[in-house]
Amino acid sequence: MARVSVVMGSDSDMPVMAKSVEVLEQFGIDYEIRIISAHREPDIFVDYAKTAKDRGVQLIIAGAGKAAHLPGMCAAVFEGPVIGIPMKTSDLGGVDSLYSIVQMPTGVPVATVAINGGANAGILAVKMLAMTDATLASKMHDYIVEQKNSVESKDVILQEKGYKAFI
Amino acid sequence: MARVSVVMGSDSDMPVMAKSVEVLEQFGIDYEIRIISAHREPDIFVDYAKTAKDRGVQLIIAGAGKAAHLPGMCAAVFEGPVIGIPMKTSDLGGVDSLYSIVQMPTGVPVATVAINGGANAGILAVKMLAMTDATLASKMHDYIVEQKNSVESKDVILQEKGYKAFI
Amino acid sequence: MARVSVVMGSDSDMPVMAKSVEVLEQFGIDYEIRIISAHREPDIFVDYAKTAKDRGVQLIIAGAGKAAHLPGMCAAVFEGPVIGIPMKTSDLGGVDSLYSIVQMPTGVPVATVAINGGANAGILAVKMLAMTDATLASKMHDYIVEQKNSVESKDVILQEKGYKAFI
Amino acid sequence: MARVSVVMGSDSDMPVMAKSVEVLEQFGIDYEIRIISAHREPDIFVDYAKTAKDRGVQLIIAGAGKAAHLPGMCAAVFEGPVIGIPMKTSDLGGVDSLYSIVQMPTGVPVATVAINGGANAGILAVKMLAMTDATLASKMHDYIVEQKNSVESKDVILQEKGYKAFI
Amino acid sequence: MARVSVVMGSDSDMPVMAKSVEVLEQFGIDYEIRIISAHREPDIFVDYAKTAKDRGVQLIIAGAGKAAHLPGMCAAVFEGPVIGIPMKTSDLGGVDSLYSIVQMPTGVPVATVAINGGANAGILAVKMLAMTDATLASKMHDYIVEQKNSVESKDVILQEKGYKAFI
Amino acid sequence: MARVSVVMGSDSDMPVMAKSVEVLEQFGIDYEIRIISAHREPDIFVDYAKTAKDRGVQLIIAGAGKAAHLPGMCAAVFEGPVIGIPMKTSDLGGVDSLYSIVQMPTGVPVATVAINGGANAGILAVKMLAMTDATLASKMHDYIVEQKNSVESKDVILQEKGYKAFI
Amino acid sequence: MARVSVVMGSDSDMPVMAKSVEVLEQFGIDYEIRIISAHREPDIFVDYAKTAKDRGVQLIIAGAGKAAHLPGMCAAVFEGPVIGIPMKTSDLGGVDSLYSIVQMPTGVPVATVAINGGANAGILAVKMLAMTDATLASKMHDYIVEQKNSVESKDVILQEKGYKAFI
Amino acid sequence: MARVSVVMGSDSDMPVMAKSVEVLEQFGIDYEIRIISAHREPDIFVDYAKTAKDRGVQLIIAGAGKAAHLPGMCAAVFEGPVIGIPMKTSDLGGVDSLYSIVQMPTGVPVATVAINGGANAGILAVKMLAMTDATLASKMHDYIVEQKNSVESKDVILQEKGYKAFI
Repeated sequence: MARVSVVMGSDSDMPVMAKSVEVLEQFGIDYEIRIISAHREPDIFVDYAKTAKDRGVQLIIAGAGKAAHLPGMCAAVFEGPVIGIPMKTSDLGGVDSLYSIVQMPTGVPVATVAINGGANAGILAVKMLAMTDATLASKMHDYIVEQKNSVESKDVILQEKGYKAFI
Repeated sequence: MARVSVVMGSDSDMPVMAKSVEVLEQFGIDYEIRIISAHREPDIFVDYAKTAKDRGVQLIIAGAGKAAHLPGMCAAVFEGPVIGIPMKTSDLGGVDSLYSIVQMPTGVPVATVAINGGANAGILAVKMLAMTDATLASKMHDYIVEQKNSVESKDVILQEKGYKAFI
Repeated sequence: MARVSVVMGSDSDMPVMAKSVEVLEQFGIDYEIRIISAHREPDIFVDYAKTAKDRGVQLIIAGAGKAAHLPGMCAAVFEGPVIGIPMKTSDLGGVDSLYSIVQMPTGVPVATVAINGGANAGILAVKMLAMTDATLASKMHDYIVEQKNSVESKDVILQEKGYKAFI
Repeated sequence: MARVSVVMGSDSDMPVMAKSVEVLEQFGIDYEIRIISAHREPDIFVDYAKTAKDRGVQLIIAGAGKAAHLPGMCAAVFEGPVIGIPMKTSDLGGVDSLYSIVQMPTGVPVATVAINGGANAGILAVKMLAMTDATLASKMHDYIVEQKNSVESKDVILQEKGYKAFI
Repeated sequence: MARVSVVMGSDSDMPVMAKSVEVLEQFGIDYEIRIISAHREPDIFVDYAKTAKDRGVQLIIAGAGKAAHLPGMCAAVFEGPVIGIPMKTSDLGGVDSLYSIVQMPTGVPVATVAINGGANAGILAVKMLAMTDATLASKMHDYIVEQKNSVESKDVILQEKGYKAFI
Repeated sequence: MARVSVVMGSDSDMPVMAKSVEVLEQFGIDYEIRIISAHREPDIFVDYAKTAKDRGVQLIIAGAGKAAHLPGMCAAVFEGPVIGIPMKTSDLGGVDSLYSIVQMPTGVPVATVAINGGANAGILAVKMLAMTDATLASKMHDYIVEQKNSVESKDVILQEKGYKAFI
Repeated sequence: MARVSVVMGSDSDMPVMAKSVEVLEQFGIDYEIRIISAHREPDIFVDYAKTAKDRGVQLIIAGAGKAAHLPGMCAAVFEGPVIGIPMKTSDLGGVDSLYSIVQMPTGVPVATVAINGGANAGILAVKMLAMTDATLASKMHDYIVEQKNSVESKDVILQEKGYKAFI
Repeated sequence: MARVSVVMGSDSDMPVMAKSVEVLEQFGIDYEIRIISAHREPDIFVDYAKTAKDRGVQLIIAGAGKAAHLPGMCAAVFEGPVIGIPMKTSDLGGVDSLYSIVQMPTGVPVATVAINGGANAGILAVKMLAMTDATLASKMHDYIVEQKNSVESKDVILQEKGYKAFI
């Protein structure tokens, strides 16, 4: 059963949403992934969000761009936590998506990550699940150590080869 | 039967929405007015928007602030035209509401008016209905003449009394 | 006789305005299309807007960029509804066009759609006309169903082939 | 033992952070509340964030304004989920706080809520904890129903007394 | 005969426009002042702008707010220079007015001054007229010297009484 | 003797400034063109601006980008009108240049044109000079007619060949 | 002899600039304070900035608002470091001042602090001087400890009296 | 011993940071350069910043993008001056980085330079060190003269070859 549901309104959002999925796969978390438009298929959307809990979904990751209503509407229908990813837009840079997702009214929060922050949405989902899952918490710890090592190794190269090696 | 449905997500939007209603009343257009939150009562909202046509509603005026999803979700469920009013917000001035309403994806337009543009939403509604209603069109013509006269009368006072009379 | 008039200030706006026209053609709505600059040909513009009603025009779709005055000036001269399309701009992304079109003063609304929202302007026009035209309303219903099916078919592919098929 | 740690960099943020605390109290969740500045007391801050897990903290709610680094630095040191609240600012409206909190780099997400979204941060925290706590989930369900009822009751008044009662 | 025409779309702009007038009066320049709305009275507006030259008007100062079309439309009809004053707005601070005035397309410039820059519009008008009017140029020189003296006298007080005298 | 001085702080601004010069040449106006940085050569700049009048300069066109001080400093030293051109910038789109030029304090106006508005700066300069130069005014009238004809001819093509000819 | 020169273009900036002065006085640093407008008194300004070094000035703190050129012009004339303070503005919140000060071109940096950041400008000045002044560095260390203690004491009150004591 | 420490959170910032280093090398100033992430390696970061003084570091140049905390956290731990460089970002242009760096709270200033202002950060560092280093001050004077000459030589070419040589 899927613990996390990844949903987007358009397949054009897939390159960003795939980053979320890759993180979930890396941590071995069961997920479902859907293309559902709250705007174009409101009935399907409501049914999707209402039945999510019964499918075992503990949290939703929703990505959307422009007047981005999908994450907020997920938070309106699904009672668990919803993570929102604002898509970069070609005209306004994604500030439209960001405001449409983060500025939710009292009572209906969306846990918003950075513009195009697909990987971070996945990591945040893992951290939420890891609160009560020691195995995941341990994997997350390892992941954080790896990140640290990755930066350290860059610095080692810098000290050895000098800054021009990075340009 | 109501030809226009005026809907807002919170009673705090009423001072702006009342401007729409006042215009509708001035033109003698039957309307209904509702407080319905797409975020807090998604079921009631969907039912409201789905049944609007059967109640005789030809168009919806929807106002909302911040991550303002109500107009866009009306446009997703109701097949007729939807006019959206972005509410001024205390932190971002209403640019969040504006982007959340106007930047709708292809297929689901919202006819957006100015921030806090309650009266203009009402006028736009009348203009839409007047396309095929000669009586309304005639009233609208009179309304426009009145507006013109109102500005002209200001200029008459200015020419008579000078600019200091306006400060 | 044209029911809808599509107007732009510069032929550089044509790729966006063509999207409006394509929708009108798809729905079989008679239209005229004009390149008229309110700034460079104010006389021609005023004549165009004043006589629109007599040519049978029920509503105007106007697109413009930067300090975009064409939609608002249409709304000043033509008494029917005006739909405004803000053009994306190379420096400010189109926020200049958007503000110049949407922030109209009381009495002179412009039904504003998204930046570069040519298709949505066409759809909004159809929805307005469909309020009192059952055939158009029925076509619009079919159009909305098609949109829904289009998204659904993407989701079917996703479930069959997995997310990597979309990247 | 505190399951949630509420932290702010300045006591001037208290009116907003108190909204988070009130939600936690309403749901009967043990919490600690601290005033700690990552900028003015980096040592105390690091010690606080490092030892949070040992104190039983499952998630942190951090609020900050302007160049708001507290939530991001919590996410850097504490391995569990961090909810960030951008404070409204007197000059830029809080967009500085928002960007400083939400635009986190890959690997270190902050679950960002709306500007001054204290209550929503609390609600989001409860939703996270309720993922594996049926009692909390049930309370959250009741809370959502209450919210719905509250809006409905406003609409009842509107239908009975008319819109002028709200102005 | 008026050399300068000062025009605004609404009497609510008068406090700012009066600053322009005061400068013109101080320099002894004949002016006319009008309240004319390009949006609400397009015919009157076009007549006003077309006949300006025949009334002896050498340049126009036009102020407007929100989707501010008055200055740009003056520049479209009147062939002389047009100075535009963007009005501060309560929601967007005047950035909407500014973009609507300054971002004019090629061929139709508006000489834009600061938001609420009524006095500067007047000074700019004087500078334009002074290009070929030695008396005005001499008065402008004196005005500039006065400005300089005014700042110098503040510094004298500062040196004598200390900075606390200014708080 | 040069009647107009065209100045920029960096040769990278030349493509935009050249548009101003082309207009001046088209109208047969004597001009000088200079690369002078107020930031990097303050002495040369002050000397340039102070002696401009003696060189016969009646107005200055100054272009600059980012923290664009050149137009404003010209207005501080030169007593005639100064036209400012904000350069588009790669990071902020030119809004930094625009604010740095248009938001001048009372007493020191800069006649600001659109971002990258080189041609419009030239046209505005001509309009200023044409106030007291009937030959220039007549040429400007012809220029405006040409602009009008240019748009009209586009519309003729549109009516003949249809909109697809423009895509 | 003054080691630091504090300069502003208008006495209206004094409440912010006084914060810088108070820090300098607290650290016992000799300073001069001047009201000089680069726009209204360019000659006096250039003389002031050119002779600063001879008066013993090691660094300048300059505050300005709107199209804020004073800090950048100080950096153009004075060869030492210049700290710039962007003033909050009533219309744009100070983002105009900020861009005008921080976005300096290569070769002429201004060390920019926060909008209305008077105290921080003073502290930054002290930190610069303390680089080679052990007594100042020691005082700065104490100042930082005091800041830390001040936050700690707030937390002590919070733990003792609860969060409601702060609202 | 390094007098200046150049630090960035990611090797992707190197092209900008290299500009700082090139200036330091040009002036013969000893420096260290590090890739250290305050977010991914908080322990290493704190150790780095705490021990900087003992390594002889007099000032830090820190560059970061998006929710850019590195410069501010340097200023929190290191007691000397910190220069911050906001990185341009692909979605928001760098305004997120800028706000995250410049809007520091009272007590913890960061000397902020322009977006991508790597060279200016280096120059500002030299100017700080040159306050008490006559040799550096003399080199800085020469550098400023070179800058001036570079612009002058451009103007010479312009006067000789005309503006078309620059396009």
